[in-house]
Amino acid sequence: MLTTPHGSVPTPLFMPVGTAATVKGVDCGRLAETGAGMVLANTYHLHLRPGAAVVEQAGGVARFMGWPGPTLTDSGGFQIFSLARQVRVTDQGAFFRSHLDGSAVELTPESAVRIQEQLGADIAMQLDHVVALPAERSSVSDAMQRSLHWGERCLAAHRREDQALFGIVQGGLEPDLRQESMERLRCLPFAGYAIGGLSVGEGADSMLATLQATVPHMPVDKPRYLMGVGQPTDIVAAVAAGIDMFDCVLPTRCGRNSLVYTFAGPVRLRNACHASDQRPLEEGCPCRACLHSRSYLRHLFLADEMLGPILASIHNLTFYQRLVARLREALVAGQFAAICQQILASYSAADGSRSPAAATEFGSSLE
Amino acid sequence: MLTTPHGSVPTPLFMPVGTAATVKGVDCGRLAETGAGMVLANTYHLHLRPGAAVVEQAGGVARFMGWPGPTLTDSGGFQIFSLARQVRVTDQGAFFRSHLDGSAVELTPESAVRIQEQLGADIAMQLDHVVALPAERSSVSDAMQRSLHWGERCLAAHRREDQALFGIVQGGLEPDLRQESMERLRCLPFAGYAIGGLSVGEGADSMLATLQATVPHMPVDKPRYLMGVGQPTDIVAAVAAGIDMFDCVLPTRCGRNSLVYTFAGPVRLRNACHASDQRPLEEGCPCRACLHSRSYLRHLFLADEMLGPILASIHNLTFYQRLVARLREALVAGQFAAICQQILASYSAADGSRSPAAATEFGSSLE
Repeated sequence: MLTTPHGSVPTPLFMPVGTAATVKGVDCGRLAETGAGMVLANTYHLHLRPGAAVVEQAGGVARFMGWPGPTLTDSGGFQIFSLARQVRVTDQGAFFRSHLDGSAVELTPESAVRIQEQLGADIAMQLDHVVALPAERSSVSDAMQRSLHWGERCLAAHRREDQALFGIVQGGLEPDLRQESMERLRCLPFAGYAIGGLSVGEGADSMLATLQATVPHMPVDKPRYLMGVGQPTDIVAAVAAGIDMFDCVLPTRCGRNSLVYTFAGPVRLRNACHASDQRPLEEGCPCRACLHSRSYLRHLFLADEMLGPILASIHNLTFYQRLVARLREALVAGQFAAICQQILASYSAADGSRSPAAATEFGSSLE
Repeated sequence: MLTTPHGSVPTPLFMPVGTAATVKGVDCGRLAETGAGMVLANTYHLHLRPGAAVVEQAGGVARFMGWPGPTLTDSGGFQIFSLARQVRVTDQGAFFRSHLDGSAVELTPESAVRIQEQLGADIAMQLDHVVALPAERSSVSDAMQRSLHWGERCLAAHRREDQALFGIVQGGLEPDLRQESMERLRCLPFAGYAIGGLSVGEGADSMLATLQATVPHMPVDKPRYLMGVGQPTDIVAAVAAGIDMFDCVLPTRCGRNSLVYTFAGPVRLRNACHASDQRPLEEGCPCRACLHSRSYLRHLFLADEMLGPILASIHNLTFYQRLVARLREALVAGQFAAICQQILASYSAADGSRSPAAATEFGSSLE
């Protein structure tokens, strides 16, 4: 259980991504119906638009977007990776050219904290330096050391006592660098620890190996958050490795591109086999999309109707919440291994395992 | 009150347009929350995609889209106007080149009825011949005569006793042709009568003059439906002229383009004046958009977030339902003239009257 000023959320938990203070295509009422507890928003994007002052004036990001529960803001470190061609990194901070209008945008540990205090989420993240993988060991090491220093500066700058600040482990795919990063970070008084710099092109096996090298060094009494991950199979494996918190754009991004998740594996809604299929996406799913037939949902996508992406996003967000709920229940019931096997089998069968990954190629890289 | 096999709807009533069996961007639960009673769908579009057989297999258009209330299907006559460059009209029927793939699409009175019986709405419309205005009297007259003959053929072809069939008055802006059309139509056993061929570029004054020349000749004991209209001011004027039923794409089309309606006049959400405005669009409006600030809604549009069009569409649909509800209450309370004056004043003040019209230029012409 994760406890915040805006409520408690049972762990493992999955946060839908609301980069610009909106989970794409899903109003907050519908979002609550998916079972989501905490929602993530992004410092870099909200700083640019509408500006932290506008969000602050509304009473913080949760009130701005109308979300009644807890929120977390990522620091902008991920944008050092995703907007790499428009950013210069020094020990001082990250200096962006805005992806919107080319203007200069500076994120230092101090300004990332200040902006996040204005955004007012329950949890803020330290500024970190995310590099694309694979990378030279020396640049991975530099980014890890820099992230540690930035973490110290974030802690020194942080004032809001009603906001938790999490540190972020870096170190690429180098087990010893991950261990060093974690051991030095845990000496700093962060309220929780995140594993950053994964899900940036390294593949599931490398990610899992890195988790296994890192998690044993994480404190047992503080939340462990794996940033930006991932596929349903990744989440199962990461919970098994000891992770408590996740966020990922896949449910909405895949949903917008007509790929939906079920416990029997992924479904491509545009396929002709669904043309007259009167079944819902998944029997027993309580989501709004599952009030409709696959035939209708396919029609919406073929007709380029907004409601297709909306309903598929709602279904996928619901699936992710049901997935982590199922893992929670399995942990309590002592059936974790069996449930994991069952889920992994559905997603490795037939064409399953390759497909969600393929779908990620469609979406915008700005989330 | 209009009574159908799927429930009764108080009049005057406004039907949201769900061309392709979806009101753009709004799920059926949210649509019901706007206060909508009956929903319109389109024969031409559903015939092309997904095909009437797919809709029939689902149990008709209402069940296909998950709408629990009454539905009406337009016949495809409007597409003779809106897709004019891709259609050839003879006395036999309308012969389209599909706007999707160029294939041949034939709509005769008989096939329009057959398709609508498959779609299974509570109300079907006769096939009519809609021409762009202004037009030569001779071509308006030809289209009116042709529509009359098509109406007779539709009645002869119509079999479903659980589906009402409405006739459509044509005659452009020629009062005597409108009168002739109406007087001959009312001799045919239609369950209701619609005024078609307006809102095709003729302007509000011409439309109103045409209504005033037509409505007095309509039966008093059958529903009177003004097709495709219109602006809030048009609806007020048309209810005053005796119209019971409306449909229009404006609430959703304008909503998608960030123009919203309020009882104080239209609001352009992209305007800078809303940047930090914490007020809702309209005090007292029960819609989901009005749970948010204007500041947030503006942000959604500037950030090109789907939720902007979704919420603005929901607000506008709610506004239209509140508008007709207010007119209904005013009729009952004997305050109709005063309420009309009040609404017309809001929309003629300042920049109001021109703006919704300007906004119609944005949208697709396919609805």
